[in-house]
Amino acid sequence: MGEIMIKNLDAALSTNIKRMKRSAIRELLKLVNNPDIISFAGGLPAPESFPIEQLKEITMDVLTKDGTQVLQYGATEGDPLLREQLVKMYVESGHKVTVDNLIITTASQQALDLIAKVFVSPGDKVIVGLPSYLGGLSAFNSYGADMVGIPLDDKGMSADLLGKKLAELKAANDMPKFIYIIPDFQNPAGITMPESRRLEILELAHKYDVLILEDSPYRELRFEGEDQRTMYQLDGTEQVMLLGTFSKIFAPGFRIGWVLGNKDILDKIVVAKQATDLCTPPFTQRIAARYLERGYLKENVKHIIELYRAKKDVMMDALEEYMPKEVTWTRAEGGLFTLLTLPTYINTDELIKVAIATENVAFVAGSSFYCDDSGKNTMRLNFSYASKEKNLEGVKRLARVITNEINKHK
Amino acid sequence: MGEIMIKNLDAALSTNIKRMKRSAIRELLKLVNNPDIISFAGGLPAPESFPIEQLKEITMDVLTKDGTQVLQYGATEGDPLLREQLVKMYVESGHKVTVDNLIITTASQQALDLIAKVFVSPGDKVIVGLPSYLGGLSAFNSYGADMVGIPLDDKGMSADLLGKKLAELKAANDMPKFIYIIPDFQNPAGITMPESRRLEILELAHKYDVLILEDSPYRELRFEGEDQRTMYQLDGTEQVMLLGTFSKIFAPGFRIGWVLGNKDILDKIVVAKQATDLCTPPFTQRIAARYLERGYLKENVKHIIELYRAKKDVMMDALEEYMPKEVTWTRAEGGLFTLLTLPTYINTDELIKVAIATENVAFVAGSSFYCDDSGKNTMRLNFSYASKEKNLEGVKRLARVITNEINKHK
Repeated sequence: MGEIMIKNLDAALSTNIKRMKRSAIRELLKLVNNPDIISFAGGLPAPESFPIEQLKEITMDVLTKDGTQVLQYGATEGDPLLREQLVKMYVESGHKVTVDNLIITTASQQALDLIAKVFVSPGDKVIVGLPSYLGGLSAFNSYGADMVGIPLDDKGMSADLLGKKLAELKAANDMPKFIYIIPDFQNPAGITMPESRRLEILELAHKYDVLILEDSPYRELRFEGEDQRTMYQLDGTEQVMLLGTFSKIFAPGFRIGWVLGNKDILDKIVVAKQATDLCTPPFTQRIAARYLERGYLKENVKHIIELYRAKKDVMMDALEEYMPKEVTWTRAEGGLFTLLTLPTYINTDELIKVAIATENVAFVAGSSFYCDDSGKNTMRLNFSYASKEKNLEGVKRLARVITNEINKHK
Repeated sequence: MGEIMIKNLDAALSTNIKRMKRSAIRELLKLVNNPDIISFAGGLPAPESFPIEQLKEITMDVLTKDGTQVLQYGATEGDPLLREQLVKMYVESGHKVTVDNLIITTASQQALDLIAKVFVSPGDKVIVGLPSYLGGLSAFNSYGADMVGIPLDDKGMSADLLGKKLAELKAANDMPKFIYIIPDFQNPAGITMPESRRLEILELAHKYDVLILEDSPYRELRFEGEDQRTMYQLDGTEQVMLLGTFSKIFAPGFRIGWVLGNKDILDKIVVAKQATDLCTPPFTQRIAARYLERGYLKENVKHIIELYRAKKDVMMDALEEYMPKEVTWTRAEGGLFTLLTLPTYINTDELIKVAIATENVAFVAGSSFYCDDSGKNTMRLNFSYASKEKNLEGVKRLARVITNEINKHK
C-alpha cells in the first residue's frame, strides 16, 4: 500500500498543522497500559471513582424512556435537560445564570478549541500562565495564537506582572484576545488563587476591556481550605467565560463539558460547533442529566474527594520522606496535581527518558506547560490515578532517579 | 446581566468566525419538534430504525465487562476494538486496509473539520460539487477555503469540467488541496457516480497529484441497482481519504465516524484531533464495536433499506402524481434525498417561508448547497424521517405551494 499517494504531502499541509505537534501527555498515556510502569503522567481520574452500577440503572432507563430521542441528532447547544440540571447546580452555588448562559461541548478540550476558533486569528495575542494547561496551549497554538506567558506566584498568576504586560500591549495596540486562567488547583502547578487575586485580575480585565477564560475542571475536588468563588461569579458582568467538565468528577469517557458565558459569545461558539461536530452525543448527555437529577453527582464527588485526599497525602508524605532537599513542590488543596521544582541544572525533558528506562516511573516534563519553553527544571506529578501503594513506590523510584542526577553534579 | 461585558465584541472576533454563519439545516431542524409541520428538511434517520433493545443488551454488557476502561480517557486514534471491527468490514467488501489505515472521529462532521484544519490555509482552493453537502462546505469555509464548484451531471461531478478547471488552476499555480466528492447517493442531489466516472476522476487526481476526499455516509443504504466500488478501493494508492459514519445506519446520537486513509495523513489528523477533543467517547465506541461484532449492524441495515425504500417509493409516486409538469427531480437508488428543480423564476429561499407559513411543510432551499450561490430554483427533500403517510401529505402540500407560485407567473 501507499506506493505512490500524492508526491508532496508536506506541501499540501496547512499552516495550522505545521505549527502543531503531538501532545507529550497523550503519548505518555500510552504507557499506562504497561503494568510495570508507574505513571504520574496523565491527568486521569481513578478508575475506582467511576459509578458503574448507577450508570447501568440510568442507561437502561434512558434507553427505555428517551431512546428514540437520544439516539437521534440533537441541538448544537446541548441537551435541554442537561443544560437545565447544570444551571440549577450553578444557581445553587450562587451564580446568576439561566440556560441562555450555558452550552454543552464535547468536553472542555472542545471548548478550548472552539473559543480559540472564535477569537484567535494568526498572530493574535493570548495571555496564559507560566506554567499553564498543555491542552489549552495546544488549542490556542492550533489557530496561530501568539502566547504571552505571565509567571505564577504562590497565589496564581501575578497581577502585577499581568498589569505591566497589559499596559505594554495596549501601548503597542496589540491587545490580547483573552486571559487564560485556571484559578482552582491549577494545572500543572496545583495552586489556588485567593479571592483577592481574582478581584485584582478582574479589575485589570475591566480596565483593559479584555475577556477572561476561566478553566475550572477541578474546582469541585477540594480536600481542605475554603471554596473560592469563581471569577465568573465575582465578575457578574459576563466578561468571563467559565469552562466546566465531567471528566474529573464523573467520567472522562463521556466527553462532556460546558461553557458558561455571555449569550452573544455562546452564539458564536454554537456557530463554530455546528461546523465541527454538529452536536455532542445526546445519548451520553441525557445519561449525565439523569445522573445529576438523581443527586448522584454530589454523592460521588464526596467519595472522590476522600479517595484523592488519601492518595495526595501518601504522595506528599513520600515526597517529604524520600526527595533530596534540593527539590521543592506545591501543596494542592484539591485537584489532581503537584508541581516539582528541581535544581536548574536538571532538564526534565532528558530526565523523563532516564526515569522510564531505569526505574519504570513516568511524569510530564514541565517544559510542556511553559509557552516560552522555560520550566525545564520542573515536572508535573498526578496523584489521582495510581493506587496509594503505587504513589508511594513511584515517589521512591523518582527520588532515586533525581538523587542520582543531583549526585552527578556534586 | 450582561450590562457591560466587553465593549467591542465584534472587534475581538477571529477572521474565521466572521466568515461563518448558522447552518440553515440546523436551524430548520428545530421545526421537527412542531407536530403540525411536516419537515423534509433534516437528513435525519427514521426513529423506528434505532435498535434500542439490542443497545440495552450491549450497554449492560459493556458496563459490566469493560466499565472502568470505557469510562476513562481513550486513545485519540479510537477504540482498538472498534477500529478492528470496521477494518474487518472493509476487508470483507474488498478494501485492502489494516488498522493503521483507520481512525475514529466524533462523526463525519469532525472528520471534515479536521481534514480542513490539516490541509486548508486561508485562500487555499478546494474543489466541491455544485451542489454539495452543506456541512462539508461549512467546515472548509471555517478555515478560509476558496471553494471552486464543479457542476454535476446525471453521473455526478463532471469529469470534463473538472479536468478543465484543474488545468486552469495548474496554469495559475493555485492547485486545490483536495476534491470533495460524495459518490454514492449524493447529498443533496441523490445521484450515484458509476464506476466509469469514478475512474475518470481518479485519473485526473493522479495526473494533477491532488487528494480526493470521498464522503460516504449513505453507501450501505442501496434500494436498487448494483453496489459501486468506493473510490478508495478503485484507487488502491491511498490518494483517497474515505469518510464513513454510523449516523445513517445505526444512531446519529452516538456521533461516531471514521477516516480510511494513508497512515501519514491520519497521523496529521490525529495531531489535530488531540487539540480538538482528545478522543471520541470510548463508551459509545465500545458499544458500537460490540454491535458490529455480534453481526447486528448487517441485520439492521437490511431493515433500514426496506424501511427507506418504501418511504422513497411513496414520495416518488406522490411527486409524480401531484407536482406540476414544470418541476423535475432526481430518482435516488439509495440514501436519504431527492433534489427538485423548479422553474428559474422561483427562488426557494423565499418559497420556504411561504411553505412553512401557508402549508406547514419544510424543505432545505438549494442555495445552501451551492458554493457559488446558484441553485436558487432547487430544493432538497428528505424521505427517510417522516412516515409514509406524512411523505404523501407533505408532497401534496408542497405541490400546492409550488403550483400557486407557478400560477402567479402565468
